[in-house]
Amino acid sequence: MQLPYYIDMIGVLVFAISGALAASDKKMYQDLFGVFFTGFISAIGGGTLRDVTLGVYPLAWVKDMNYLIFITLGVIITVLFKRVIFRLHKVIFLLDTVGIGVYTILGVQKSLQYGVNPFAAIILGMVSAVFGGVIRDTLINELPLIFQKEIYATACMAGAVVFVLLDYYDFHSDWNAIGCVLLIIIVRLIAVKYRLSLPKIDL
Amino acid sequence: MQLPYYIDMIGVLVFAISGALAASDKKMYQDLFGVFFTGFISAIGGGTLRDVTLGVYPLAWVKDMNYLIFITLGVIITVLFKRVIFRLHKVIFLLDTVGIGVYTILGVQKSLQYGVNPFAAIILGMVSAVFGGVIRDTLINELPLIFQKEIYATACMAGAVVFVLLDYYDFHSDWNAIGCVLLIIIVRLIAVKYRLSLPKIDL
Amino acid sequence: MQLPYYIDMIGVLVFAISGALAASDKKMYQDLFGVFFTGFISAIGGGTLRDVTLGVYPLAWVKDMNYLIFITLGVIITVLFKRVIFRLHKVIFLLDTVGIGVYTILGVQKSLQYGVNPFAAIILGMVSAVFGGVIRDTLINELPLIFQKEIYATACMAGAVVFVLLDYYDFHSDWNAIGCVLLIIIVRLIAVKYRLSLPKIDL
Repeated sequence: MQLPYYIDMIGVLVFAISGALAASDKKMYQDLFGVFFTGFISAIGGGTLRDVTLGVYPLAWVKDMNYLIFITLGVIITVLFKRVIFRLHKVIFLLDTVGIGVYTILGVQKSLQYGVNPFAAIILGMVSAVFGGVIRDTLINELPLIFQKEIYATACMAGAVVFVLLDYYDFHSDWNAIGCVLLIIIVRLIAVKYRLSLPKIDL
Repeated sequence: MQLPYYIDMIGVLVFAISGALAASDKKMYQDLFGVFFTGFISAIGGGTLRDVTLGVYPLAWVKDMNYLIFITLGVIITVLFKRVIFRLHKVIFLLDTVGIGVYTILGVQKSLQYGVNPFAAIILGMVSAVFGGVIRDTLINELPLIFQKEIYATACMAGAVVFVLLDYYDFHSDWNAIGCVLLIIIVRLIAVKYRLSLPKIDL
Repeated sequence: MQLPYYIDMIGVLVFAISGALAASDKKMYQDLFGVFFTGFISAIGGGTLRDVTLGVYPLAWVKDMNYLIFITLGVIITVLFKRVIFRLHKVIFLLDTVGIGVYTILGVQKSLQYGVNPFAAIILGMVSAVFGGVIRDTLINELPLIFQKEIYATACMAGAVVFVLLDYYDFHSDWNAIGCVLLIIIVRLIAVKYRLSLPKIDL
């Protein structure tokens, strides 16, 4: 799957908006810098950690200014149209779900392409999708969302595992990528709708 | 601007002292290891994140032992002369302000030199100056200072933006660098004196 | 000292178990994902930060799938046999102590091999041994253990310093490595037995 460039930019925009919105829960972050910073980290955190782990330079947002332009756009949209965005929270949620689906599979593909073992490729796919949120939540001193909320990272893992398995059996077609992105989206939507969560372990 | 080596070392020393002093607010950190660790992170955190983001190896403090010697010196000074240093808190504040000014512009210059886009160069300049403090505050479980206090990161941003703009229009002279360092220092001094802060955003 | 491969794998297993056990203190982490994640970070965090700092790619766990297999094994063992493991907490403690000893000296050796200055080699040796735990504790919003508990990082430092000094005076034999690993183990055992800690600094 060669991700069309504009889908990548939409992903960056959506993650920046969701990051900037997250800042609104913390009084401390409610100045322009705090809002930009959380939007920025949310948008580039996952891909950056993946590429630093792989040792792949230069990083995308360092080379290509459009990433930062779309992040800025997302932050400005959030600040100007917060009420509208809150009313559109279902749209944001949907876009965010599409975003983690696309970023997971792209992360797995890029990792495999750099000769990474399949297990590590699954982890790096998940990292691409969720790490921005983890760093953001850690910085604002909250237990990261991925440990509290519904099956979030697990949806990414499911898609990544299926993709790697099919890829291993030479099922290289774009349909594998598209199908696994859809799998992630569907698992998360079902989990949220029926409030599913992983079984607690009585340690 | 070719930063004279001794200014770099003074910057490391000052950041190490301010890190070691920060450890004094937390009982848990008041042993020699905790004080050294916070001083160390404060001094090298920003430059390390910048260089890892750029993929520039080897890192300065890994290659050149003087960084670690000056950090150790800063920690020892803090432990031995804490009373004097507390009385000198205005001097420390001034040195810290000079430090973030110098590190911001140096970070921008180094980034541009590695072919980074101007927007990313601004961010990496800010990272050079403030990230040591962010990591330190996160580790000791406090909301990072840059989100609470006066226009701290914003002063760095102002200087970085002006530098990049003038540099873009071929204004390469050292006066650009020196002027922008001074701009950062002045913005921060004014912000602290008049307790300015960025406008809150009512999200 | 060429570390036999199986010792490295045992180290990974032990660190993964101790990480997974740590998750049991936090209700939020008690699903399968949370337990795996903390085990994973605890096992690979230190070596990853060391290698990213050195700029040495590819990272071990990214190249060699056995790391992730042994981490998964550690997590499964923890989940299935938690009661047994709790009863064996002295064995785990001993293995963990051996682990930080081995990882410290290996980290120092690897760093020196890449031309790092001796002071930085000591720090990177300590990082190899303790950073996994620091990141884990920061993520679950606790003050990192190394700042609270007995002489933990300090034991690593003692071994690293002695190793670097002897190595500097051309004492390259494996006995240096083995002796320094034992030194770390002994310092920590004595510190825990007699509840030693570093002197508090009245800042």
